[in-house]
Amino acid sequence: MCIDRITFIVAMEAEARPLIRKLSLVEDEFFGVGLPMRGWTGEYEGISLCLVTNGKDRATTHDLIGTEAATLSTQLALERYRPQMVINAGTAGGFMQKGARIGDVYLSHREVVYHDHRVDIPGWEAHSEGHYPVWDTGQLQSLHLKYGVVSTGSSLDMPEGDEKRIHRLGGELKEMEAAAVAWVSSLHAVPFFCVKAVTDLVDSGKPTHEEFLQNLKLATDHLSEACLEIIQFFAQNPNIRLK
Amino acid sequence: MCIDRITFIVAMEAEARPLIRKLSLVEDEFFGVGLPMRGWTGEYEGISLCLVTNGKDRATTHDLIGTEAATLSTQLALERYRPQMVINAGTAGGFMQKGARIGDVYLSHREVVYHDHRVDIPGWEAHSEGHYPVWDTGQLQSLHLKYGVVSTGSSLDMPEGDEKRIHRLGGELKEMEAAAVAWVSSLHAVPFFCVKAVTDLVDSGKPTHEEFLQNLKLATDHLSEACLEIIQFFAQNPNIRLK
Repeated sequence: MCIDRITFIVAMEAEARPLIRKLSLVEDEFFGVGLPMRGWTGEYEGISLCLVTNGKDRATTHDLIGTEAATLSTQLALERYRPQMVINAGTAGGFMQKGARIGDVYLSHREVVYHDHRVDIPGWEAHSEGHYPVWDTGQLQSLHLKYGVVSTGSSLDMPEGDEKRIHRLGGELKEMEAAAVAWVSSLHAVPFFCVKAVTDLVDSGKPTHEEFLQNLKLATDHLSEACLEIIQFFAQNPNIRLK
Repeated sequence: MCIDRITFIVAMEAEARPLIRKLSLVEDEFFGVGLPMRGWTGEYEGISLCLVTNGKDRATTHDLIGTEAATLSTQLALERYRPQMVINAGTAGGFMQKGARIGDVYLSHREVVYHDHRVDIPGWEAHSEGHYPVWDTGQLQSLHLKYGVVSTGSSLDMPEGDEKRIHRLGGELKEMEAAAVAWVSSLHAVPFFCVKAVTDLVDSGKPTHEEFLQNLKLATDHLSEACLEIIQFFAQNPNIRLK
């Protein structure tokens, strides 16, 4: 099937900027009117492209991050742009012990999970962990990106309990939005996957936020290159399986 | 100011049922079409009432709970019903050591916070903890309900780190939705508060989910009585200060 409408959900402006520039996207003034979320639109070889960010908190002027903002951004994006595919592009922490290096770009593999949603009632554990399936990114194998299960939580740190759950769930990337984007996309029956660039190694012993800030430019440059390659792939391969 | 449009956000159907019955609300078939969220509407002495629940997960048939579902429910409710006041009604865990008893009904006091959103970058801690102000519930003092700061997290359990943060934040009630409802309401500049009935005492040593199920009927009965009293108060007091 030919994909001609893709929407990127990107949490922070610093993550989105290189991609907005590379794709020459233009801000959509009618997106999310009155709300902090922002939308940009453009076109690449017949594919209509949209990109949505969470925007900034009015009081602190910090970027809105986390699963609540991602939920709202994704809902607004799906309502307005009606994409055939949602791609959550962003940065993430990787694990040295699983072979991740700073700047690596991963595609989400198999499913997206929560590592900090714990409801220990029989039958509710898996429900609370999400386990949202992702679109079959194996079709993008020729791009030579890495593959991993993405695990989402609402915190930058990683206490022991979270670390144990990430490993039990097979998580290779730790970040703060993907499962929420996946959930809202699933409600609308729109295929979803992630592309995530590694800003920090959560098992390096270094403070995550220092590594994050140090490597943000490198990671977002790699991220925007990978996103462009993905769009080119969709443009050149009209026989993609959406389901 | 006279309040004539109130919307209740209630996570689970079991929490909402007694209130829907007591207020003779009727399901709104056009609410959240295609999504799991459900809406009910009705009227009480000139006040237009709406109630929204998260609905059920299609795959597991479990109620949707947590902050992501609450974010989406609140956004859909605000878009469709344009209330003057959002009330998050539900159940919560209380603390014995702070005087809570099973079945107690609390109004939210001062602010709503997150106890499991940790971003330890200078300037980001408070941003990630929410600290969303609540409407001045002191105006409802004549109802003789209890008052407390409501603290939200994505888990039913309470590891030591969460417990410490709840106490640091002055939390008297632990639950799973309020901060998200508060945040979305704040984006729309709609006043917000919580009314929460205690199903379990998180420091009792008993398993939370057993206490929760045991006391759910008692707590939701008390909750629906308190909600009716609140509505009656608004109907009889046209000089409420909304800001």
